[in-house]
Amino acid sequence: MESKLSRPSSHGPHGPVVTLLTDFGSRDAYVGCMKGVLLSRAPSLRSIVDLTHDVPAQDTRAATFHLRHAWAWFPTGTVHVAVVDPGVGTERAILVARHEGHFFLAPDNGLLAPILEPTDAVHALDVTHYPAPSATFHGRDLFAPAAARLVEGATLEELGPGLRPGQWIGATEPGPRIEADRIAGRVEHVDRFGNLILDVPGAALGVDTGDWVVEIQGVRVDFAPTYGSAGVGALLALVDSYDRVEIAERGGDASSRLDVGRGTPVTLLRAGATRRQP
Amino acid sequence: MESKLSRPSSHGPHGPVVTLLTDFGSRDAYVGCMKGVLLSRAPSLRSIVDLTHDVPAQDTRAATFHLRHAWAWFPTGTVHVAVVDPGVGTERAILVARHEGHFFLAPDNGLLAPILEPTDAVHALDVTHYPAPSATFHGRDLFAPAAARLVEGATLEELGPGLRPGQWIGATEPGPRIEADRIAGRVEHVDRFGNLILDVPGAALGVDTGDWVVEIQGVRVDFAPTYGSAGVGALLALVDSYDRVEIAERGGDASSRLDVGRGTPVTLLRAGATRRQP
Amino acid sequence: MESKLSRPSSHGPHGPVVTLLTDFGSRDAYVGCMKGVLLSRAPSLRSIVDLTHDVPAQDTRAATFHLRHAWAWFPTGTVHVAVVDPGVGTERAILVARHEGHFFLAPDNGLLAPILEPTDAVHALDVTHYPAPSATFHGRDLFAPAAARLVEGATLEELGPGLRPGQWIGATEPGPRIEADRIAGRVEHVDRFGNLILDVPGAALGVDTGDWVVEIQGVRVDFAPTYGSAGVGALLALVDSYDRVEIAERGGDASSRLDVGRGTPVTLLRAGATRRQP
Repeated sequence: MESKLSRPSSHGPHGPVVTLLTDFGSRDAYVGCMKGVLLSRAPSLRSIVDLTHDVPAQDTRAATFHLRHAWAWFPTGTVHVAVVDPGVGTERAILVARHEGHFFLAPDNGLLAPILEPTDAVHALDVTHYPAPSATFHGRDLFAPAAARLVEGATLEELGPGLRPGQWIGATEPGPRIEADRIAGRVEHVDRFGNLILDVPGAALGVDTGDWVVEIQGVRVDFAPTYGSAGVGALLALVDSYDRVEIAERGGDASSRLDVGRGTPVTLLRAGATRRQP
Repeated sequence: MESKLSRPSSHGPHGPVVTLLTDFGSRDAYVGCMKGVLLSRAPSLRSIVDLTHDVPAQDTRAATFHLRHAWAWFPTGTVHVAVVDPGVGTERAILVARHEGHFFLAPDNGLLAPILEPTDAVHALDVTHYPAPSATFHGRDLFAPAAARLVEGATLEELGPGLRPGQWIGATEPGPRIEADRIAGRVEHVDRFGNLILDVPGAALGVDTGDWVVEIQGVRVDFAPTYGSAGVGALLALVDSYDRVEIAERGGDASSRLDVGRGTPVTLLRAGATRRQP
Repeated sequence: MESKLSRPSSHGPHGPVVTLLTDFGSRDAYVGCMKGVLLSRAPSLRSIVDLTHDVPAQDTRAATFHLRHAWAWFPTGTVHVAVVDPGVGTERAILVARHEGHFFLAPDNGLLAPILEPTDAVHALDVTHYPAPSATFHGRDLFAPAAARLVEGATLEELGPGLRPGQWIGATEPGPRIEADRIAGRVEHVDRFGNLILDVPGAALGVDTGDWVVEIQGVRVDFAPTYGSAGVGALLALVDSYDRVEIAERGGDASSRLDVGRGTPVTLLRAGATRRQP
């Protein structure tokens, strides 16, 4: 009952939004087929938004990165569908969850782990409701029809049985190691501009980022308040729009410049701390 | 009269959907211009869905592949617009057709041939209705305005004169050669994951695909029920979500592994048949 | 008052359209976040259309090229949002303008210069209205919320103070040099097909393009009325759908063939003029 879609005024008169996040790419019509199913089965659907379909094939960590930074910008009641699914056709469950008034549909492969909390309602999609899904395209045959049911007001209970924490795959990535004067993290994502987005939350730095310096591959990078406040061609670190520490090159591509990618270790040192070292 | 758009409840309150399939790519604003025309002229339009715009330039066969596997997933009354058009600016006709309650707009270059049947209504767009189209961008100047008229309920008769079979270009591709124990086909499409999708329908294999093996470039590949049922790195064949025989590598890229692409010949042999050979 | 959105019948019952043009690419969820904000804050929004997000990073000239050729195809009242913004985080203003019944939001970096006219209403977005924008993602934190306000009927005056010509950055690119028998221009854009789109308007050629020949990199190219009227593999020049002179290869890629790109100088000569030369 309580998991009925509430439809706040931010929806407008047209019902909920669905977001799609896959590794299907844009060369094929796979995403189009999913949209066809949604439009066929969800007359209340307001709009479908592509988060991205260019997740590297079967890279669930990249999918998680995009989804966790995007979902909260959508209206309450949005249904977020993420299909990056190396286990399609195996016995892996499909999760249907509710977190802060948003709905999430994704394979049970850890993709949702950094978003969901132990108190969230998490259910396993009852796939027997959907006749004869293909072995290879659950996005079209299971995820889209289930999302359509959520759009039309189905409850989580109607979609499948509830799970307890421990019955679905939680977070497995170790986070950054945060000490008072030293943080050991990694590059979590390289964006289209070559900016290096770390796994270090901006909040870990305290109020004054100017106290800190970043070391990556033997290169020291100072903090700047914005891209524009560094000279063209300069490397800088800042707290970005995802509230993450980011390393950028003003007007350039930090990833190429430093020849680094996802997983590269990064150390942040509080400047005072480095000065204290002999 | 009978070609008026019927609007089943699956449409919701917002009218028909339009799908777009082109080789215009995503770097330019060409597709955006088409959408602007649709939104300007079709107030009843519910939604515009991109099937793909990354068809290789002027590759009508690839366009056909995508459209024939996607259209049926959309609501009845959807208008499918396909603009892959090596003959733009020549005298080639533009077809407006109705098949199983869906509408199709495409150049008369064979693109629609595998979708339409002899009993379908096929008309030639009367281009004199649209003033002064540019020589190079019929997508914006002819296809989009004509699609908008269909969305608003125009009949095929209103869009142009009817054609008889033989007056438009039918199928020219030879299909696979299917015998009881042996099928000779080809790779018809390589998808974003490197999966090889053959021109062989799954139905040709009978009930038990396990009877068959696939030979491609001297390599023998066994059938598996799903991607997940093969070991990581193994090649497998299966009947895919388009009801086609597909060759995949679990967790990898079969196209790169085998160094093959569209057109590569493939032989399927019924296992019993191979055993009967000396 | 007069800058209230008028909503002609071309809108249909669903309110204005928003177009998005960025250099954010499709690999990240940045564009998705902007759409989430628009959907959250603009219940009257009819549809969001992507013009392109594949503008080369920080290439404001390419953005201008796309926007100036696309905007007029949308319904009156459309809000066009262009975020190609090398100066994000600096003191550059954000312009909100109205031109021929359309609204435009873009950084004050020359992007809108070739579109706006001295008599248009141009305002500077009052950014203090939007609490605590991130330093790096004004698309999400300033442009999308401001566009949502326009969709909901806010006036330009409500968005920020008016500017006089000279208070915002006007056109800086020199145009082509046009004489009676000779035009000196440049390649302004290379599209996905390898077509070379010049900065020369078709109108500069007079009624008969057949009088002219194009010289590029020592190669002479004749005009043809359409792509289809040249032989396969032939180079041709024509006046394209953007009313620009364009150099194309029938069925091929003129950019690769001639090994040229944006900025390459091009000369057009009236044929009689060349004959008059000794």
